Amino acid sequence: MSAHEIPKTQKGVIFYETGGKLEYKDIDVPTPKANELLVNVKYSGVCHTDLHAYHGDWPLPVKLPLVGGHEGAGVVVAMGENVKGWKVGDLAGIKWLNGSCMSCESCELGNESNCPEADLSGYTHDGSFQQYATADAVQAAKIPAGADLAEIAPILCAGITVYKALKSANLQAGDWVAISGAAGGLGSLAVQYAKAMGYRVLGIDGGEEKEQLFRQLGGEVFIDFRTCKDIEGEIIKATNGGAHGVINVSVSEAAIESSTNYVRANGTVVLVGLPAGAKCKSDVFNQVVKSISIVGSYVGNRADTREALDFFVRGLVRSPIKVVGLSTLPEIFEKMEKGQIVGRYVVDTSN
Amino acid sequence: MSAHEIPKTQKGVIFYETGGKLEYKDIDVPTPKANELLVNVKYSGVCHTDLHAYHGDWPLPVKLPLVGGHEGAGVVVAMGENVKGWKVGDLAGIKWLNGSCMSCESCELGNESNCPEADLSGYTHDGSFQQYATADAVQAAKIPAGADLAEIAPILCAGITVYKALKSANLQAGDWVAISGAAGGLGSLAVQYAKAMGYRVLGIDGGEEKEQLFRQLGGEVFIDFRTCKDIEGEIIKATNGGAHGVINVSVSEAAIESSTNYVRANGTVVLVGLPAGAKCKSDVFNQVVKSISIVGSYVGNRADTREALDFFVRGLVRSPIKVVGLSTLPEIFEKMEKGQIVGRYVVDTSN
Amino acid sequence: MSAHEIPKTQKGVIFYETGGKLEYKDIDVPTPKANELLVNVKYSGVCHTDLHAYHGDWPLPVKLPLVGGHEGAGVVVAMGENVKGWKVGDLAGIKWLNGSCMSCESCELGNESNCPEADLSGYTHDGSFQQYATADAVQAAKIPAGADLAEIAPILCAGITVYKALKSANLQAGDWVAISGAAGGLGSLAVQYAKAMGYRVLGIDGGEEKEQLFRQLGGEVFIDFRTCKDIEGEIIKATNGGAHGVINVSVSEAAIESSTNYVRANGTVVLVGLPAGAKCKSDVFNQVVKSISIVGSYVGNRADTREALDFFVRGLVRSPIKVVGLSTLPEIFEKMEKGQIVGRYVVDTSN
Amino acid sequence: MSAHEIPKTQKGVIFYETGGKLEYKDIDVPTPKANELLVNVKYSGVCHTDLHAYHGDWPLPVKLPLVGGHEGAGVVVAMGENVKGWKVGDLAGIKWLNGSCMSCESCELGNESNCPEADLSGYTHDGSFQQYATADAVQAAKIPAGADLAEIAPILCAGITVYKALKSANLQAGDWVAISGAAGGLGSLAVQYAKAMGYRVLGIDGGEEKEQLFRQLGGEVFIDFRTCKDIEGEIIKATNGGAHGVINVSVSEAAIESSTNYVRANGTVVLVGLPAGAKCKSDVFNQVVKSISIVGSYVGNRADTREALDFFVRGLVRSPIKVVGLSTLPEIFEKMEKGQIVGRYVVDTSN
Repeated sequence: MSAHEIPKTQKGVIFYETGGKLEYKDIDVPTPKANELLVNVKYSGVCHTDLHAYHGDWPLPVKLPLVGGHEGAGVVVAMGENVKGWKVGDLAGIKWLNGSCMSCESCELGNESNCPEADLSGYTHDGSFQQYATADAVQAAKIPAGADLAEIAPILCAGITVYKALKSANLQAGDWVAISGAAGGLGSLAVQYAKAMGYRVLGIDGGEEKEQLFRQLGGEVFIDFRTCKDIEGEIIKATNGGAHGVINVSVSEAAIESSTNYVRANGTVVLVGLPAGAKCKSDVFNQVVKSISIVGSYVGNRADTREALDFFVRGLVRSPIKVVGLSTLPEIFEKMEKGQIVGRYVVDTSN
Repeated sequence: MSAHEIPKTQKGVIFYETGGKLEYKDIDVPTPKANELLVNVKYSGVCHTDLHAYHGDWPLPVKLPLVGGHEGAGVVVAMGENVKGWKVGDLAGIKWLNGSCMSCESCELGNESNCPEADLSGYTHDGSFQQYATADAVQAAKIPAGADLAEIAPILCAGITVYKALKSANLQAGDWVAISGAAGGLGSLAVQYAKAMGYRVLGIDGGEEKEQLFRQLGGEVFIDFRTCKDIEGEIIKATNGGAHGVINVSVSEAAIESSTNYVRANGTVVLVGLPAGAKCKSDVFNQVVKSISIVGSYVGNRADTREALDFFVRGLVRSPIKVVGLSTLPEIFEKMEKGQIVGRYVVDTSN
Repeated sequence: MSAHEIPKTQKGVIFYETGGKLEYKDIDVPTPKANELLVNVKYSGVCHTDLHAYHGDWPLPVKLPLVGGHEGAGVVVAMGENVKGWKVGDLAGIKWLNGSCMSCESCELGNESNCPEADLSGYTHDGSFQQYATADAVQAAKIPAGADLAEIAPILCAGITVYKALKSANLQAGDWVAISGAAGGLGSLAVQYAKAMGYRVLGIDGGEEKEQLFRQLGGEVFIDFRTCKDIEGEIIKATNGGAHGVINVSVSEAAIESSTNYVRANGTVVLVGLPAGAKCKSDVFNQVVKSISIVGSYVGNRADTREALDFFVRGLVRSPIKVVGLSTLPEIFEKMEKGQIVGRYVVDTSN
Repeated sequence: MSAHEIPKTQKGVIFYETGGKLEYKDIDVPTPKANELLVNVKYSGVCHTDLHAYHGDWPLPVKLPLVGGHEGAGVVVAMGENVKGWKVGDLAGIKWLNGSCMSCESCELGNESNCPEADLSGYTHDGSFQQYATADAVQAAKIPAGADLAEIAPILCAGITVYKALKSANLQAGDWVAISGAAGGLGSLAVQYAKAMGYRVLGIDGGEEKEQLFRQLGGEVFIDFRTCKDIEGEIIKATNGGAHGVINVSVSEAAIESSTNYVRANGTVVLVGLPAGAKCKSDVFNQVVKSISIVGSYVGNRADTREALDFFVRGLVRSPIKVVGLSTLPEIFEKMEKGQIVGRYVVDTSN
């Protein structure tokens, strides 16, 4: 079923208990089930969620031992007998949602990420921090031929997530969207997607460097929270009545609550970051009288994935990355824990 | 312009300062502007909002002196020269939104109640606790000929409000809606509208009497918060995964927060009551992973009004009322403050 | 994998060339693929589409030899190794869409029936006119335990189809829906679904018997095309401005064109019948100035299926049927060709 | 109420019977009603609809005598006593919908152009081919200060119309929209709006000059109907499955019918031109199986107007015009009748 010679063992990063040793070592190449692809992962993005999986600090238990990673871009080298719509040699992406039951109400409605039996890459299913990974063919991302596999890797999670968040804001072209945390990893992707979708973009972040990046990406109005005396007032003024939508990629509780004040009447506040234990607090009187919506947006579905990748492939969204070897993943995790990461790291599985 | 002889003075209930004396006395009959109707109010519902206006305890200042009331049902007796679509003798309703600028973005979008210059009956514009009241012809409610003016009065605010809240839940026929506070004034209307819209209704309230009323109105599953040990669990079980929508007419902060737990993935929690100073708190992780929406719903617009009245006129919604004379309004306010009101009071302006 | 003993051969009705002999005979029991269920079909509805498959007169070629039927209700007796969300003993329905690629844009968007590689029961995949049939587990209908398998059979195609058509009309509770052909097989189901969805139902059909049936099913206004002098005018009058939506189950070209005249401004005309070679003609000036939509509605997806079955199981929709033996299918086809069928035939596969 | 000195008489172009003499002469300046603005029209676009009004060849009767024109841009010089939200000196636009009843169901729903009592500029209400015209303040377009009044004039009808048509296509950013007649007056505006809304634009028109214009405006794929052998096949190929939406500004019956073939499954065909007596014909089998919608789009409402003007003011849409004196209007009508018009004429009311 494959021209590519598939080895028995491969290199991968694995841990045997949460918070335990991260080992870069030889592990078995998995065998795809009847409904699965076997993907030769070339590059994988590294995401904060990988750290949560490693520490096991989310309410949802992880598989152990575990190979993490859920932003893997590679090539299909084999597939199960029931797979339709794929062929060996196609480019494929391993994303957060590895597979779902396709049988429950959430799956029927295209909300597969809300499936109670969702199988999650790098969490409940070995992920993309290895050279060969399996993925349910229904959920695997179709990456268009010719795409740069290193650059597209972070789109498979970060890109899809912000794109879905923007869709959840229910805006139309010409509307104002405020992005709280506009110059960070998720924010800088959000600015570009928002621009490509025809929205007017207001960014909130701190510092001149951030402002410069924001403007390069196509942002229109920048609010520097370090210097602005009246953030809510300035946003309402700049947007002539408040932002139609707000994307909270920042995970500050105070910033989230503030966004309910500068959003326009009948507008939408989107929650997308996952701060552990945080609450979104909204004044009921304000929310009712302004008739605003606060919407939780998780990860995109198959259609969102195709669309988000399409914006990238058409050159409308860029993803600045630093490529390092998979073997250095333990050091990247360390830096991430210390908050020393700037930009997005992508690991090359070949070294 | 009118066959009806319009007097110069009339009976009304007026107060000159917030919290001051409520006087039932002779006051001038107002003159309609070019865009206004003069309505001979026959009956007016009494609503908790009237108490807030009287005490002036909401962030928004009231007109003084003030004639309160915003659920007035009566007959058009005169109209300004620019009025279109009305004739003397038509039945008309005075509702919360008396008029709006028809010029701002909110008005353009049919969200007139969010207009920054909204003129509010019984708040910034003399309302329906008098025999003759004025209303902008664009916003006045068209009451179908033959309707019972006493019974329809509370529909003009309470009915429209719960109907709009149900629309804001974005449900389809066959979905489960949970109504928190199902057997109260707003709740019992909500149950009936929900039933008429094809939803399956789960009610939450306390006591056997309440359960009985709930079932008479067409409710399907009743959760008694006084006896149920695991409210969230029971609701999730009864609805096979959680309610698709929740209408919070109860104004308890805890009940609102709880509703974010028993709402289904991708479902909608609606805030509609206006508890002074209350916050809606939602766990961000839960809201994101379940992709739920929390929506503030204020009052209905012109189309919502027509539709809500239509359900009433077709007999699908009943509104149990107690009719008393307008002159007894001060006593009703007293009872209301003491929480002694059961059901909806309607004042008859003729005595 | 099954407690039920599965035979090697079974009874079925098969034909070897389009329009050829319909043979009731022993044929092999099929083996489910890894993604398929094997369903012991108890009852199967008989639909006009089965006749089109038999004659091969639609643009789409049929599989040969072919076992027809796509309204099969039965019990899961075996399943492939990759099936999730099902167990042996569950009730399952074989519907028109047997399976799809789950990989193309239409599938991603939940429009699986528009998949270019859609596999159709009783058309490109052996269907329900046999005792054991296979179905892709993702598309097979989940029939709630305890349902009457004979009565539910026609819901699996006719019921889902009219339910989806009603959803396509984009109505809200309280709106008027006109059903052209209201007392026929599809029409009488449409009336009941429309009623359960909270719509007001106007029916168009001919004769007193039809009117009587229509009224029994909950219809509100009946227009008898045999006696009404001004059908369009009467409908516009009865609905106070035109129907908000029209469901054309009648396949008359003239009736379809007429529906563009009695639909309300901004309303929706739904096409759902499949008259061979017919055109829908709409006056452009009328369509633009009234801003109406004409929408083609095919068959429902997985969510539509679950919902349509739920209305049936809750007793809101009844499906009057005549049950006969599978062996008599050739005679039923003959009657159907002669237009002698009244009501819905269901075949019992046991004889 | 006005600093500007308003004369008693003014210059205008008037006709006394349909098809009669078009006279450029002194006429009375109208007096605004309580709800109206008096606008000093500086420039007015000339549209094909003006010709229909002049000939009286549409089903709807015109006012006589009549001053035509419905794309007037000017300055508010006076207003009635009930006007809210405007002040003397504001820039205002006279558009097709001069006013509506604000009382019927269509008006309530924001579909004022479908109001049975819609008052139409240059048709049932004297329009913008004069120096001073009146407009209902609710419907008059708010033109942002500083806008070029000559260039914005055609946006008031042509721009709003194509913008609304694009919204009616119900697309999302990244979708393909095909514009049939892409390089004509409406088409070239549609290309620009579509681009600004984030759509991918395919244009159909004839000739190299047209292709060049199309590409300058941001179009991506051009289909030359003069040279293309398989228009439908090429469009389906270029859009990878068919256009998600089609805007038919071309009024050819054959082109409209063809668009139902190259639109994608679940896509939308929009009718926007008003060819006298034309029918839209659609094969029922194709429309049902592909589940496509055919939608009539008339003129935009108040929100559409504000949005369409905003795209123009932000420089995302250009409107190439030829400015001539109002006195030359009869010659322009002549050229228009002979089909000699290229581009959009705008008359300057000052000469």
